[in-house]
Amino acid sequence: MSESFSTLRINPTRLFDSFSALSLIGATGYGGVNRPALGEAHLAARDWFRIEAESAGLEFRVDGAGNHSAIVIARATARHLHRTAFGAVQVSNLQHGREIASSGDALLAKTLLLGSHLDSVPNGGRFDGALGVAAALEVLKTVKENGINLKFDLEAIDFTDEEGTLVGLLGSSALAGRLHPERLKNPRGGRQNLLDGLARAGLSEAGIFTAVRPKESLAGYLELHIEQSKRLERMGIDIGIVSAIVGIRSYRLGFIGRADHAGSTLMTDRADASLGASAFTLAARELVMRDFPDCVVNIGKMDFAPGVFNIVPARVDLSLEFRSPDEKQFEKMDAALMTCAKEQAARFDLGLEIECFEKHAPNAMTAEVQQAFADSCDDLGLTHVSLASGAIHDGQSFDGICPIGMIFVPSVDGASHAPREFTQWEDCVKGVNVLLQTVLRLGSR
Amino acid sequence: MSESFSTLRINPTRLFDSFSALSLIGATGYGGVNRPALGEAHLAARDWFRIEAESAGLEFRVDGAGNHSAIVIARATARHLHRTAFGAVQVSNLQHGREIASSGDALLAKTLLLGSHLDSVPNGGRFDGALGVAAALEVLKTVKENGINLKFDLEAIDFTDEEGTLVGLLGSSALAGRLHPERLKNPRGGRQNLLDGLARAGLSEAGIFTAVRPKESLAGYLELHIEQSKRLERMGIDIGIVSAIVGIRSYRLGFIGRADHAGSTLMTDRADASLGASAFTLAARELVMRDFPDCVVNIGKMDFAPGVFNIVPARVDLSLEFRSPDEKQFEKMDAALMTCAKEQAARFDLGLEIECFEKHAPNAMTAEVQQAFADSCDDLGLTHVSLASGAIHDGQSFDGICPIGMIFVPSVDGASHAPREFTQWEDCVKGVNVLLQTVLRLGSR
Repeated sequence: MSESFSTLRINPTRLFDSFSALSLIGATGYGGVNRPALGEAHLAARDWFRIEAESAGLEFRVDGAGNHSAIVIARATARHLHRTAFGAVQVSNLQHGREIASSGDALLAKTLLLGSHLDSVPNGGRFDGALGVAAALEVLKTVKENGINLKFDLEAIDFTDEEGTLVGLLGSSALAGRLHPERLKNPRGGRQNLLDGLARAGLSEAGIFTAVRPKESLAGYLELHIEQSKRLERMGIDIGIVSAIVGIRSYRLGFIGRADHAGSTLMTDRADASLGASAFTLAARELVMRDFPDCVVNIGKMDFAPGVFNIVPARVDLSLEFRSPDEKQFEKMDAALMTCAKEQAARFDLGLEIECFEKHAPNAMTAEVQQAFADSCDDLGLTHVSLASGAIHDGQSFDGICPIGMIFVPSVDGASHAPREFTQWEDCVKGVNVLLQTVLRLGSR
Repeated sequence: MSESFSTLRINPTRLFDSFSALSLIGATGYGGVNRPALGEAHLAARDWFRIEAESAGLEFRVDGAGNHSAIVIARATARHLHRTAFGAVQVSNLQHGREIASSGDALLAKTLLLGSHLDSVPNGGRFDGALGVAAALEVLKTVKENGINLKFDLEAIDFTDEEGTLVGLLGSSALAGRLHPERLKNPRGGRQNLLDGLARAGLSEAGIFTAVRPKESLAGYLELHIEQSKRLERMGIDIGIVSAIVGIRSYRLGFIGRADHAGSTLMTDRADASLGASAFTLAARELVMRDFPDCVVNIGKMDFAPGVFNIVPARVDLSLEFRSPDEKQFEKMDAALMTCAKEQAARFDLGLEIECFEKHAPNAMTAEVQQAFADSCDDLGLTHVSLASGAIHDGQSFDGICPIGMIFVPSVDGASHAPREFTQWEDCVKGVNVLLQTVLRLGSR
């Protein structure tokens, strides 16, 4: 990297004004925002993105999955612009079609994506996702105003529906070519809500799949995000460099007993499904804390049947989710939890039904990107630590497709997905400067 | 009692035919019946009652709460009969009005009620309630055909809605003058279902309260019922003489934690409401089995909020019910369970909200009636044991109003409220003969 760039910093006042304006969109009045994907507030936040991009003289475009982009095009490449059917400016070049793989046009630069998302969970916080988008735009503005000619196109991208109000990682998986059509048929947010959201945004189900980009076009994906846990705050460290995004497995465990009269049936004569479910809930926590200390487990729900005061529970269906940053450890943890469930069911003479809902493997971040983040922190005099992300993020859509990397800034009290979500402003600025310096480091010609 | 009556027995063939016909009404095809209160099948079962009564030459009547009665009138009293507004024959005498208290008419006999109910829980068994009604009718038929002149009127009564599909103990509490109007305003089965049921049966809300009878008119209440637990079967004993009907207390316990991201929040940073609820469920069972061995406790339901896979449960509302046959013990048990809940909440850094739903005191059976049952068993050469009823029954409506007593016949495998509910036929016959002999013993002039 050119020596002259290592002293470059983002404009904290411009970033503050921009982020503050964004935080007002869908604001809930308690410091939080309510911007579920493709709802009115989310669409308004996307207008903020377009205005930010256009007023900074950045190229702006929207793809078929509704992903919003602002671009600084490397000067070595020249492209034509035209209006898309949606009225947005779209870059018309081979980079955005499958033809690139066979074109072999050496003049076409790859694109480094800097992304995050503007949608929030219902009644969420103003930092999750939004800070990463504001950071990406600020980095582009800094690059552009300083006339820096990187070896890749630099693209700030707001991915559609990261949080899963509708589908989850919708925009990033569509762009990566990893969105399975069946995920749209029975989305977690409900099919009609998805169709309504697409209609509101002027999108179509078929159009979503046109967002795919060839892997050869991608130089990498970087993201700045809030940590969402207390590790950085406790350690007093500036920057978390993500080593991996945890994998997630979820199961429904059905503990099966027998409905009996809750008055006349002696305690010793019951096959009470609540006992197996309760004992498993406690034992699973002990097991994970003891044997898998960098993993987490959650029992988010139990459904009792028949579910009345005066009948012994015949069946309890338990919603189990657990996460691990390491696939080998994941297998061991899975086996240990299933053994635990069987033991607790047997202990109370219950049957057990095991139904697997999802298995997402952990995603390791690219070593070279982690190193570039670390070097940037060192140059900036910031402390850093390697840690896993317990939450999922858009970056995992690009695992195996292009280099990926993420940094975390500290979350006060670890709060997230709630209005009290907060990051000190100086910590935000530090993180965005690390992002800028890492882009310069990776993109220097 | 006259020596000549002590050899009298019911007619087991007639009882079998009658009970078998009843068992076909609302039959579910697996030995069970589905006769929720005031549904079509229940109304059909009431027609069976009317036909049984009329074809045996018994007086038949229906009161404003829909209770169906068949009566053998003591010969010393003479009464006029007239048709009620509902088309049923109703006894018109001072015994059915409040005037009796002041009438002082020594010629008017009191009434001994032999009761139970023809309604079932949804998809219940054919013995619960129905056997007691068939037994009562068989006792009346035996008394009538043998021309026995008792010192009280003898009335077989089918009480409306014992099981609580609509209200619970509706008919018996109305007759006892203990039905609070507000129980009809927000009934457990839903207000509209209650109104629909009353309309189907030709009843009215106001009419229900006309079913009240002065306590001076009641000689007592006797009931034969299936045990609904395994004690008699295990001990190999013929007859259970009920010492008390357990009291019931029910609470909603709200364990209050904090919603957090189930991936990014470290295990040690969670306030997970599921842990308090689960630990309480296990500890409450241990506590009751250890310190209150003749009591029972049930956690019939837990409601998780927000109740999704990937959020740490912020709140779990737990439906707690426990029963005791003794009021003093009940107080100790209540205090011990509430202390347990507080301890388990504190153990996991959770808040606790306690909401009491109901407190029904235990109802002791009348000592003289228990003795009469025991003497009858001895005369019949049947083994008997004193035990508490873990289930509620119509008899408790008459606690403090008139003498009350109940006997149990063995339940195979303790099953109840299910199609597999079963009592050996010879055990049924033994029980009905005990009921007959006890009526004769109490009613001999």
